[in-house]
Amino acid sequence: MHNDLYAALDIGGTKIAGALVSGDGRILLRSQAPTPAREDGARVMGAVSTVLDTLIADPRWGRASALGIGSAGPVDASAGTVSPVNVPGWRGFPLVERVRNATGGLPVTLVGDGVAMTAAEHWQGAARGYDNALCMVVSTGVGGGLVLGGKLHPGPTGNAGHIGHISVDLDGDPCPCGGRGCVERIASGPNIARRALESGWQPGPDGDATAAAVAAAARAGDPVAVASYQRAAQALAAGIAATATLVEIDIAVIGGGVAGAGEVLFAPLRRALHDYATLSFVQHLKIAPALMGTDAGLVGAAAAASLSAQGETAAVGS
Amino acid sequence: MHNDLYAALDIGGTKIAGALVSGDGRILLRSQAPTPAREDGARVMGAVSTVLDTLIADPRWGRASALGIGSAGPVDASAGTVSPVNVPGWRGFPLVERVRNATGGLPVTLVGDGVAMTAAEHWQGAARGYDNALCMVVSTGVGGGLVLGGKLHPGPTGNAGHIGHISVDLDGDPCPCGGRGCVERIASGPNIARRALESGWQPGPDGDATAAAVAAAARAGDPVAVASYQRAAQALAAGIAATATLVEIDIAVIGGGVAGAGEVLFAPLRRALHDYATLSFVQHLKIAPALMGTDAGLVGAAAAASLSAQGETAAVGS
Repeated sequence: MHNDLYAALDIGGTKIAGALVSGDGRILLRSQAPTPAREDGARVMGAVSTVLDTLIADPRWGRASALGIGSAGPVDASAGTVSPVNVPGWRGFPLVERVRNATGGLPVTLVGDGVAMTAAEHWQGAARGYDNALCMVVSTGVGGGLVLGGKLHPGPTGNAGHIGHISVDLDGDPCPCGGRGCVERIASGPNIARRALESGWQPGPDGDATAAAVAAAARAGDPVAVASYQRAAQALAAGIAATATLVEIDIAVIGGGVAGAGEVLFAPLRRALHDYATLSFVQHLKIAPALMGTDAGLVGAAAAASLSAQGETAAVGS
Repeated sequence: MHNDLYAALDIGGTKIAGALVSGDGRILLRSQAPTPAREDGARVMGAVSTVLDTLIADPRWGRASALGIGSAGPVDASAGTVSPVNVPGWRGFPLVERVRNATGGLPVTLVGDGVAMTAAEHWQGAARGYDNALCMVVSTGVGGGLVLGGKLHPGPTGNAGHIGHISVDLDGDPCPCGGRGCVERIASGPNIARRALESGWQPGPDGDATAAAVAAAARAGDPVAVASYQRAAQALAAGIAATATLVEIDIAVIGGGVAGAGEVLFAPLRRALHDYATLSFVQHLKIAPALMGTDAGLVGAAAAASLSAQGETAAVGS
């Protein structure tokens, strides 16, 4: 794929990003617009068109052979529609058809944002060389994706790897998804911060009460802050171990803002993994921080388009 | 595969079964021996040889093109070894090599017993026609296997689908596997019986304190018995929903002795599934009882051998 060029879209609740990505994974051109998340569906699509127009105006556009979309979920790759939780104006929105029409019939591949991030980490990042991997984003939410048998596993609808909404505490707190005790309900940044505050942690003079501030307090030895990260690590470990036990993975790659806490998260995570990854075939499981940073969504969407062009992914929204 | 013939072994902690299986899945010849589970490894292999000798003595043996083994786990298909929890004399036992030697070099495929059962249900049973399925045995233990993208997914070591040992209760009771709150620790037959007894259920005059007796009491309206099955159903639902959320499955097939409780288990299971399978792409998930009965292990081992001969499975112990 080194001579090819791909277009990519990364659709989130905060911003819509676009890029032209070379066949070896370099971003040649970027375009970006804020997501008008509280407006109607047509206006959100207007922001996508604005981002696309910048790409289309570039002289290299004509060389793009396919377009990949990584979108906040849930998505339905089989129907070509998206219903991002944080974009209420889009419910079953036919994004694939609209993008295909806007780009003159370019082949379009749609996957969830967790799957896109996974494609990027497997192609160029921390999961490179691993045939069986879970990649996760731990941030405002918790998402993920899977590589199985050397190939991206988007699942029939492009949503596979949704580790944030598996229950690791069947009697636990209600989750906005409707479930209970989901990994995200325990391990996301806002939940790390909430738990610290509820347990008596006090923000510093700047009033910063985010998970990053809790991480700074934990590094300084605050036991309540440490405990909140330990609980998040325990939930992540249970979820990662469940994934390994179900599908056999060799590595779990963790990115997103919460992973930025570093050893405050990773040290208790490795310890907790011993408690849950118990069977012989999962004991060797590695944990590694993600390497692709904020470009993972765009590079991964390009990778998904490339894999789809090669017939490698099950979920192609075209 | 209709003109082919396969040999099959089903290795359990209680019995070792063998068969010749036609290419359309009929068992043409059976052979069986008790597992000398508490004796040394050589004696256990002796029982396997006895079972094989009966097959080899049959005039149809010469038509067998491959042999499949479904074994109690954990197995290591990549190494060709087995370490069944309930057969302490076999730890890393080179079963594939021994069987290959005993059969004159026949190609041998090894999978875990949950994977074998899944192959059978996908080939001829309740998962037939489904491209993405979880098949489970709920009995003394809880095991399972996966079909993904239309193909059996044994995983690199043949152990994928081990749903019994994912934690759905991260602070829950210790499990013999070393974990906590595993599905098996809550939903297996012995745990259903134990929980009923601990909550005050009294066996009848025959003293039968098995999960089957608890099921009979539940059918007769005993609230403690009903509650014990409801708790098992809740754990199974959380585990099944987790699997669907991670890999996208369309159906969960449940066999084994505990599934014999019928609606005592399946009715609360379907209700509980609504509580945990919440995301749009998992809400359509079906639950169905297994159809293959006690032959699933043998038919599934033959199916795994057949798939391996066609190059369809990742895990081939030869």
